[in-house]
Amino acid sequence: MSQLERVAVAEVGRHEGRRVRVEGWLHRVRLLGELAFLVVQDYSGSVQAVWEKPNGGLSGSPLESAVSLVGVVRAEKRAPSGYEVVVEEFKVIAAADPNLPFEVAKPVVDAGLDLVLDHRPLSLRNTAVAAAFRVQATVGRVFRSFLESRGFTEVHTPKIVAAGAEGGAALFPVDYFGRRAYLAQSPQFYKQMLVGAGLERVFEVAAAYRAEEHDTSRHTNEFISLDLEMGFIASEEDVMRLEEEFLAALAAELERRHAADFVLLKAELPKLPGGAGTAAGTFPRLTMAQAHEVLKKEFGKASPSGNLAPEGERLLAQWALCEAGSDFVFITRWPAASRPPYAYRDPEKPELTKSFDLIFRGTEITTGGQRIHEAAALEASLASAGLDPADFAFYTEIFRYGMPPHGGLAIGLERLTAKLLGLGNIREATLFPRDRSRLVP
Amino acid sequence: MSQLERVAVAEVGRHEGRRVRVEGWLHRVRLLGELAFLVVQDYSGSVQAVWEKPNGGLSGSPLESAVSLVGVVRAEKRAPSGYEVVVEEFKVIAAADPNLPFEVAKPVVDAGLDLVLDHRPLSLRNTAVAAAFRVQATVGRVFRSFLESRGFTEVHTPKIVAAGAEGGAALFPVDYFGRRAYLAQSPQFYKQMLVGAGLERVFEVAAAYRAEEHDTSRHTNEFISLDLEMGFIASEEDVMRLEEEFLAALAAELERRHAADFVLLKAELPKLPGGAGTAAGTFPRLTMAQAHEVLKKEFGKASPSGNLAPEGERLLAQWALCEAGSDFVFITRWPAASRPPYAYRDPEKPELTKSFDLIFRGTEITTGGQRIHEAAALEASLASAGLDPADFAFYTEIFRYGMPPHGGLAIGLERLTAKLLGLGNIREATLFPRDRSRLVP
Repeated sequence: MSQLERVAVAEVGRHEGRRVRVEGWLHRVRLLGELAFLVVQDYSGSVQAVWEKPNGGLSGSPLESAVSLVGVVRAEKRAPSGYEVVVEEFKVIAAADPNLPFEVAKPVVDAGLDLVLDHRPLSLRNTAVAAAFRVQATVGRVFRSFLESRGFTEVHTPKIVAAGAEGGAALFPVDYFGRRAYLAQSPQFYKQMLVGAGLERVFEVAAAYRAEEHDTSRHTNEFISLDLEMGFIASEEDVMRLEEEFLAALAAELERRHAADFVLLKAELPKLPGGAGTAAGTFPRLTMAQAHEVLKKEFGKASPSGNLAPEGERLLAQWALCEAGSDFVFITRWPAASRPPYAYRDPEKPELTKSFDLIFRGTEITTGGQRIHEAAALEASLASAGLDPADFAFYTEIFRYGMPPHGGLAIGLERLTAKLLGLGNIREATLFPRDRSRLVP
Repeated sequence: MSQLERVAVAEVGRHEGRRVRVEGWLHRVRLLGELAFLVVQDYSGSVQAVWEKPNGGLSGSPLESAVSLVGVVRAEKRAPSGYEVVVEEFKVIAAADPNLPFEVAKPVVDAGLDLVLDHRPLSLRNTAVAAAFRVQATVGRVFRSFLESRGFTEVHTPKIVAAGAEGGAALFPVDYFGRRAYLAQSPQFYKQMLVGAGLERVFEVAAAYRAEEHDTSRHTNEFISLDLEMGFIASEEDVMRLEEEFLAALAAELERRHAADFVLLKAELPKLPGGAGTAAGTFPRLTMAQAHEVLKKEFGKASPSGNLAPEGERLLAQWALCEAGSDFVFITRWPAASRPPYAYRDPEKPELTKSFDLIFRGTEITTGGQRIHEAAALEASLASAGLDPADFAFYTEIFRYGMPPHGGLAIGLERLTAKLLGLGNIREATLFPRDRSRLVP
């Protein structure tokens, strides 16, 4: 077989009139008289190839086999990319078992989510299934590059920890050389410590663990948390403004790079109040008190408790879309009782915190806020949450050495990806989900 | 106090003649008659400020307090950045406890590593201590951006797993809803599965766990692994070539962005065979058999066993530097007995594998190679390693659906950072190390 350098299928059009080698998976075969039309997929996309008189040369190559072919590139209007490869040589690199658990080359895989997840690698050969992970990689890339452009430093904090960061969430125990340790439910303490350490603006993209036995379409027990924390803020507004600017940058990049993925999944780009492509607009903001008013006045829903139920989040999203043309709405000034002990209290109404959630299309995708920066106040708050401040000395120590006002936020990567693409279950945006019943693959 | 927008200290020079607000940590104070010279540090660097007649205004602001000051920027040749701020207003945002566990504003912190790690956040206020983590963030950024430019997709694979990937390394057990699970010692299985899934070129930057009870300067029990895996390779040479190109890109970026950090740490940029700034040169390569010959012939060291001892790695690095002017040397063709079961056998000498280590300045920083891609051969290899292939069906399944020849590598981020900067202990390049004795902070 010719020793030509391999060309990525997305680059085939640049080689019109020349002989190229293409390698990938045999995704479709259509026979038309003495012609075989093939679709070959690789990491960069897919390309049509036409084989004149294959004479049974395809008989040992079931769909999804890994193949290599050599041929000349020609322009062909009817081919999806505008080019096709006229096959001269064809070789099977690794034949696929013809009995696939489901058909891969369909617009939508005709299999339930459990079957898809049981055969996750094969499912990703489907372009629509894989689209979520191409988009997810872009979300991570924009998060990092946006923050780097603002002077943030990427950090890596330990996931094996001695104590949990949040009050409520349950922890997974780890046997650490005979000692009991836990999997970190968030990098909260560490990212605050690193603000105080003088790095001042830090971010982390890493796994977080919640041992809660929930069984919903928007929770898993291991997920990727996009975390940031920054010092010398005037208030939580600085953090919210930063998130608006990140999401505007993300929307622009999704439009630029992933328009085809959004069409494929029949999904819509996020609606920003300023409109796409413009400078970051200001998302609508409601205090919790105002949110409850809106729910009562506009939707006739009275919810006496402090928290918003999933239904409340959906209705407030509906309100924000009508009132401000925004898929996003901030809910601010949460009651201290429903926030962790490090949340900064509103000096004028100490029962409220300077914290926020961001709701996107009816689901909370971010929790953030300003944090307590005075050591004594933090220790008192830990104690009144029933925790022993001595257990948290590793965290509070730096607060005695010049801790500035600071704040930050966390975004669940899979949940954001799912909401961006209109996927009904967070597991569709998780390569290998971990939940109560799923530990394999 | 003036309501001026804060300016990052690295940007002060752009505001010559204008009034600015600067916020950060009070790093140094020098009194000269009626003048106080201050050094203020923030995330972007440090700046000199001069306060005429402070009149005791500094008495409530110990070193390392968080401060805010307003003043006019003027050119000043004797200031390290060429500019200084003439203080008009000065305010302490958060006073530091004057009893620091060690002095921060020294070229080198005068404290043992354990004390430094016990007070890790404070230690990072020292510019030299923090330099390792600025450089480390760049290593991660270049790894990602280089691979993205080659069509790689970032993935996130689970760290809670049902089975370990490597033969030898011990695993940390996790109590997963009453079932026994483990912390992943590498994303090996998952990244191979994702090659077969059609993503074809994938990378991951994530924690890896080894429960080995070692106590050395080059091991910790939780570390960040830079992993990549790629399909349709001709041999492990494709992977080695990619690593050479990554390291050349990294060296160029370190020279461009971190020259000052290297000076500060008295470290040298890596020596590449092609010379810095040129296209990626080819690193010297020795098969294991050749490596043992060199050790015997050049250094009089006979080592009958298959593996290289740390001393062997050091001597081979010395050889590569003399022979090829290279800080890097590949050792290839490892015996199958010392490699995991997924290592691809040399068809001509099946007792050897198509695998490699990369030695950098005397320490192994990478293990990689081609992997077995035939399902039957992989299952046979697992079985002959004493494992039950049925336990690994989640991994081997995709090998039946068109698995191309593939390979990849893993680089330990902290170890690479430490070797780049000449740090003697990997813990100096780990924000919060986890080892047998250290679980806090």
